[in-house]
Amino acid sequence: MKDQQHLDQLRHSTAHLIAAAALKLYPNTKLTIGPAIENGFYYDFDFSQPISDDDLPKLEKEMATILKTWKGFSHREVSEKEAKETYKNNEYKLELIDDIIKRGEKITLYKVGDFEDLCRGGHSEDPKKDIGAFKLLSIAGAYWRGDEKNKMITRIYGTAFPTKKELDEHLQMLEEAKKRDHRKLGRDLGLFIFEEEVGSGLPILLPKGETIKHILMELMRNLEEERGYKYISSPVIASEELYKLSGHQKYYHDDMYQLQDKEEKLFYIKAMSCPHHHMVYRNMVRSYRDLPLKLAEAGTVYRNELSGTLTGLIRVRGPITQNDSHIYCTPDQLKEELAKVIQLFHTTYKMFGLEDKYWYRLSLPDFENKRAKYPGDPKRWEFAANQIREVLKEEKANFVEEKGEAAFYGPKLDIQMKNVSGKEDSVATAQIDILQPEWMGLKYDTAEGTEERPYVIHRAILGSYERFMGFLIEHYAGAFPLWLAPVQVVLLPIADRHAEGAQKVAAKLAEEGIRVEVDARSERLQAKIRDATLQKVPFMSIIGDKEIDNDSISVRKRNGEDLGQLKTASFLEQLLKHIAKKETI
Amino acid sequence: MKDQQHLDQLRHSTAHLIAAAALKLYPNTKLTIGPAIENGFYYDFDFSQPISDDDLPKLEKEMATILKTWKGFSHREVSEKEAKETYKNNEYKLELIDDIIKRGEKITLYKVGDFEDLCRGGHSEDPKKDIGAFKLLSIAGAYWRGDEKNKMITRIYGTAFPTKKELDEHLQMLEEAKKRDHRKLGRDLGLFIFEEEVGSGLPILLPKGETIKHILMELMRNLEEERGYKYISSPVIASEELYKLSGHQKYYHDDMYQLQDKEEKLFYIKAMSCPHHHMVYRNMVRSYRDLPLKLAEAGTVYRNELSGTLTGLIRVRGPITQNDSHIYCTPDQLKEELAKVIQLFHTTYKMFGLEDKYWYRLSLPDFENKRAKYPGDPKRWEFAANQIREVLKEEKANFVEEKGEAAFYGPKLDIQMKNVSGKEDSVATAQIDILQPEWMGLKYDTAEGTEERPYVIHRAILGSYERFMGFLIEHYAGAFPLWLAPVQVVLLPIADRHAEGAQKVAAKLAEEGIRVEVDARSERLQAKIRDATLQKVPFMSIIGDKEIDNDSISVRKRNGEDLGQLKTASFLEQLLKHIAKKETI
Repeated sequence: MKDQQHLDQLRHSTAHLIAAAALKLYPNTKLTIGPAIENGFYYDFDFSQPISDDDLPKLEKEMATILKTWKGFSHREVSEKEAKETYKNNEYKLELIDDIIKRGEKITLYKVGDFEDLCRGGHSEDPKKDIGAFKLLSIAGAYWRGDEKNKMITRIYGTAFPTKKELDEHLQMLEEAKKRDHRKLGRDLGLFIFEEEVGSGLPILLPKGETIKHILMELMRNLEEERGYKYISSPVIASEELYKLSGHQKYYHDDMYQLQDKEEKLFYIKAMSCPHHHMVYRNMVRSYRDLPLKLAEAGTVYRNELSGTLTGLIRVRGPITQNDSHIYCTPDQLKEELAKVIQLFHTTYKMFGLEDKYWYRLSLPDFENKRAKYPGDPKRWEFAANQIREVLKEEKANFVEEKGEAAFYGPKLDIQMKNVSGKEDSVATAQIDILQPEWMGLKYDTAEGTEERPYVIHRAILGSYERFMGFLIEHYAGAFPLWLAPVQVVLLPIADRHAEGAQKVAAKLAEEGIRVEVDARSERLQAKIRDATLQKVPFMSIIGDKEIDNDSISVRKRNGEDLGQLKTASFLEQLLKHIAKKETI
Repeated sequence: MKDQQHLDQLRHSTAHLIAAAALKLYPNTKLTIGPAIENGFYYDFDFSQPISDDDLPKLEKEMATILKTWKGFSHREVSEKEAKETYKNNEYKLELIDDIIKRGEKITLYKVGDFEDLCRGGHSEDPKKDIGAFKLLSIAGAYWRGDEKNKMITRIYGTAFPTKKELDEHLQMLEEAKKRDHRKLGRDLGLFIFEEEVGSGLPILLPKGETIKHILMELMRNLEEERGYKYISSPVIASEELYKLSGHQKYYHDDMYQLQDKEEKLFYIKAMSCPHHHMVYRNMVRSYRDLPLKLAEAGTVYRNELSGTLTGLIRVRGPITQNDSHIYCTPDQLKEELAKVIQLFHTTYKMFGLEDKYWYRLSLPDFENKRAKYPGDPKRWEFAANQIREVLKEEKANFVEEKGEAAFYGPKLDIQMKNVSGKEDSVATAQIDILQPEWMGLKYDTAEGTEERPYVIHRAILGSYERFMGFLIEHYAGAFPLWLAPVQVVLLPIADRHAEGAQKVAAKLAEEGIRVEVDARSERLQAKIRDATLQKVPFMSIIGDKEIDNDSISVRKRNGEDLGQLKTASFLEQLLKHIAKKETI
């Protein structure tokens, strides 16, 4: 906490530094605001001339020069009149001053060196000492105050650290994150495309991307069916009646696409499948003997997101194919079922080598500040939260608690991970539903002949398949393990006359379920090896005269390791063994 | 054709007969119209008292009595004035008379026995002899002239045949069709549900129904991947831009659901996936070396159908999960690719025992009457149609030709089957697309360096998975072959103490992929056998003391056949063999 405050202060100070430098180099510039943000800072300028990436080194040099002269920040309080006189030619600052007045706060100016700026404070005590190293990262257009009705001004991003070493490590991480960016890899590896004619946030999975999605879907289906889950399939649209009943209309109306049929009845494209599953419950469950019922679905949902908020596969409008399930149980079964869910998370994430990389966030209701958002009996909320806490402790799971992020129908357990840029993301979820069963009339007869409401665990182990694929692309930097690789082996005939032999080997491998391609282009072998390496295919198998004569292939791994000549049958056997064990090759 | 005319005439005559009988029994009845229809006739009455199924025998008896007195129809032409005087108390006939006048036709009254009715003719010459046997089938409400703004009157359906034998055969077929009705079986076997809160024509597949869909989907995926198809996955919504480009907006606007995003951009829920696939083509194909490209998708589409037109799984709003594919090829490859499609139809339909039950309908453009509906060069249409004809002949496929049912982008080949009620249905389709490639800018470089447009074959071997499931339910009368049965084996412990042993056997079978259930209810064995038989589970395996001691089970087939006691391992081995061979058990 204290470290973070120190970082924020030195970065905010660096924002003043770039403002001072910009004003020196471009005296007609209008300054606006420059906060510290996660991992750095920015400053928004209204320049009187165009600025590009090429200008950043000049700015950095000027910043270094100015920093040498800085001793410490001092500040003074000024009247509205004085402030407005000072900034009479800067409409941005004038707007800020009005806001300060409206909030009834004091107007303060902070000075360091010979540079003074409107500011509410929060700087390093000794900027020259504290700002060990800084770097300007990029330039972007930004609407003043984020409002697209305002003027577009220029935002310069940068970062700063106490030491050069820390800055270098951070820059290296950014470099690595850029290489792992799933949007770039998705294009380079032919996994998915976005097309303007189809629309923003609506990816099409190309054959290689769809192969990965299908493997993930079948993997989860097998794991789940072994554990007694039953798959169903529900439509992507439903009448508004259903969402009125489930309570979603009240909370999600704006985020669901609406449509009408020819008879002018209102429908939604579903943003969640729970109401559909509850309808199935009503059809399948009579008594406690039918519980627990575990319904599952690779359920596709869509969300009416603003186009500006979309990011690759991580935030889309759809398809969001959820690895969805609803577990209906009696109060007595709740803890055991929850424990099984936690165990399934562990089993599954371990398959991807993620067992040490995730933690849980228990999201609780905020009864003090947002009572209306969390209806129902607080005792039931507390009961559900306690059940989750107990299970997490018994399963020795890492978890933090947070108020105000619960679902409207019960406490939520999110799976958190840091992505390659160091940003925390919610990947998947498990929730206890204490309210929808009542609203949707779900019930069962107990052994004693009374009528009870079931509890429901909503859970999505992989979250959405498309989104999880986005995480995996970055996690593996596109080099998927053999069992998950869309192409597992590429066969490289040395000359055209070896193409037929390669096709025969390919047929043999394909018959055993290996995903194999033949690169029969009339290219040099080195070019083919280079392309297969760029495509991150786990194994390249070279086929020439010698190999055909010996019923063999010469095998290279994508990391360049040469496995030499292997009998085709023995290579196949090894492949199948690695795949069955889901080994990381 | 002549037979059909003869049937129509005797059925139309029988419609006069019921009108005469109704007037005799209920003299205040207002008569309206009574045409022959497919497989029978109806008559619409405005009765002055309620009529129910219980009244039908009385009507039939009166009809038989009257028929004995009938010699032949005679007719006379009357003036508008005389006609209107005759029917002055019957607003329906008065409306019909006005319509006849408007069309400039003559007004004729047809008399037989002592019953005369407004009619345009088309009767049997000797009704007493020709109407060998008749039967009244049902009563339904019907809006006068099918318009919901008009009064609801009473429709009585019936049928008639030259002989009692033919009538009996027809009634037996109707009885069988009722038993096979997929809507009834879907409910009884727990395959799918329709719920008012979700909406009309929007089925939810229950676990057993989803299991069948999943088996069908994986079956096709395997067959297709073996043949070089590549699966992709595309969103269910797309911007209107895409459908403008592809030409679908012009022809399908009214049948696609529309929606807007928050930025008020117009989108459609897709009713077809071809435009999405064409976008993938543009991304994946550069030259003739990339062809043929066979893209496949289990693509879900929705259609904005009027609620009144919906029928079970056969006609839904959605999900319609198409077994969709687009094959892009050069003109030289077209015939070979088309032949492979015809062969895949045969291979697939044979798996369901349907190889003798389908035929092809080649749907051609109707240039004489609907030139605007079929744009493009007639020579290219003719080329494509000829390619299809040649392939059908070479593959010795049964086919008929029809004008006016082609797609707007090319000739269409439909797979036709008769359903259990004897009605012809289109089950699946293959189409040659000669126009979309141009509209969507699809091209490839030839070996000679020129630029060409590919041909596209649109094809769906099983049509839609949900709809095909509907056909299969009726085809198998719900008794799915072992490989397709959602539950393959149900284990029946004789007493409660055998339940544990049954669970162990179940686990062993499940491990090998058998879909098995244990009926552990405290019911009598006979009741359990009866329920499993009603659920049409292929094998019931009884487990008692003897079986547990011997590591055996006593096996019964759903048809009642007793296979006696079998070692569990040997039973499992037989099951796996039957499943692998897709044998009909």
